Amino acid sequence: MAMPDFAAWSRAIQARMETALDRVLPAESLAPARLHAAMRYVVLGGGKRVRPMLAFAAGEAVGADPELVERAACAVELIHVYSLTHDDLPCMDDDDLRRGKPTCHVQFDEATALLVGDALQSLAFEALATPRAGLDGAVQVEMLGLLARASGSRGMAGGQAVDLYSTGKSLDLAELEFMHIHKTGALIQAAVLLGGLSLGGLSATARSGLEHYARCVGLAFQVMDDVLDAETDSATLGKTAGKDAAQGKATYLTLMSAGEARDYAADLIADAERAISSFGPASRRLAEIARFILERRY
Amino acid sequence: MAMPDFAAWSRAIQARMETALDRVLPAESLAPARLHAAMRYVVLGGGKRVRPMLAFAAGEAVGADPELVERAACAVELIHVYSLTHDDLPCMDDDDLRRGKPTCHVQFDEATALLVGDALQSLAFEALATPRAGLDGAVQVEMLGLLARASGSRGMAGGQAVDLYSTGKSLDLAELEFMHIHKTGALIQAAVLLGGLSLGGLSATARSGLEHYARCVGLAFQVMDDVLDAETDSATLGKTAGKDAAQGKATYLTLMSAGEARDYAADLIADAERAISSFGPASRRLAEIARFILERRY
Repeated sequence: MAMPDFAAWSRAIQARMETALDRVLPAESLAPARLHAAMRYVVLGGGKRVRPMLAFAAGEAVGADPELVERAACAVELIHVYSLTHDDLPCMDDDDLRRGKPTCHVQFDEATALLVGDALQSLAFEALATPRAGLDGAVQVEMLGLLARASGSRGMAGGQAVDLYSTGKSLDLAELEFMHIHKTGALIQAAVLLGGLSLGGLSATARSGLEHYARCVGLAFQVMDDVLDAETDSATLGKTAGKDAAQGKATYLTLMSAGEARDYAADLIADAERAISSFGPASRRLAEIARFILERRY
Repeated sequence: MAMPDFAAWSRAIQARMETALDRVLPAESLAPARLHAAMRYVVLGGGKRVRPMLAFAAGEAVGADPELVERAACAVELIHVYSLTHDDLPCMDDDDLRRGKPTCHVQFDEATALLVGDALQSLAFEALATPRAGLDGAVQVEMLGLLARASGSRGMAGGQAVDLYSTGKSLDLAELEFMHIHKTGALIQAAVLLGGLSLGGLSATARSGLEHYARCVGLAFQVMDDVLDAETDSATLGKTAGKDAAQGKATYLTLMSAGEARDYAADLIADAERAISSFGPASRRLAEIARFILERRY
């Protein structure tokens, strides 16, 4: 049987994640119903699910059981959605459009959006702390620690802070990449490594290959985000376009032309592909995601 | 050698926690420095550390290693401080005084306070996910899951939501207690159980005794909080007094007199003491904390 092409594979992951996240989220009928409704509103029915795709692709590269990868993918996606929900709040980016829908604090209210983010972060760790047959407790503890570090002040939340404190300042390339490696890179790397660790452990070589791949792919994703943010309209993006530039935030396009940025992203993706070459044909999906990041239109 | 009295014991726990939390928190010299300074500002140098005391006392009751209890105590306290930081935000309680100091968003800014809470939640799970010699991986996973559930939408964050959505409504006793069992009770129960689980596991009897103790103590704590909030000035409390009543929030004193509330708390504490009687003399500190909650002045 021929393997499905990348478009079919990514749709299958999106469908699988919708079902898995629906199961992990508390039912709307459970009290407090408004909070649970808001959590389901922000998590379900949208999103490219790039981080889950990375987790499943990394799991496939090392030969991990997809059932075990699924929980890790849910945990990472819940952290991602919590960060979007808080990032959209008036005291942060003050955004009113996300994934083509009103943001949580617009649809519900600010306090609910705050609690939604808080509760989704807890739920991410709860999902990853569910005992799993076939996964050693010590490995699960390692995975939980990895996700916590990637989410915290030396990971994603720290990157958000750097972003916040550097608004209106000019950053050089090293400073801009320090921010992105934390703000988006840390969680992308966590997605890849958690997918790999779902095998039950990783050799030093496999781990370092996946880390290098994740670092390159994470930066390329951000470079292309900046390019698309400048070149695409809000309706296509499903979020407010041109916002970073309007808010005086440093982007790759304040440091280079759009053409140079595309070339830089292409170099990063080539580097990412080299980093996973030792996995052979099993790394096919990782390579396809790298290509997708470079060629996506929204 | 005579055992130290309760006042000396609780000061020793407070001092131990100050050192332990200082070690767990990232140094202010690490980037992003402003975020780390704000995290240290809200966590260090104050707080009664009631939840850590409960964890250490429960650990003592079952005979757990205090070194292993310490990490659990740090994790619970970090979750508690994150919730205070978010609860004080303008979109929630909009409070400007906490532990006798300006609240985080007043001292720093709203976006920083949001990220401080987010990063402290991650740090709590990171602290608890540190591999510990002497603790089985599966038990650590159980402890992480327990803390995540206690913090999330069916625990503390859910209780905050119920509190939010019931402001200005009259609650009956059952509804009020549903709110408190989630908003403060879930984390108090987590503190007690994590202290006990630091032994490496708990018998069903020990677990159920600790759970019942925690439930009674958690409610009594809240009853006395309402009494003190109504009867004490802000300077003594170290936070804004009389705020709940002013904001139209239901409290025990909207349902009963202060005298009746004190009697109710005394009944709960007597029940808590019965629940731990099977632990014998080792439960001394748990009993003392129960007494302290009933007799505290702030």
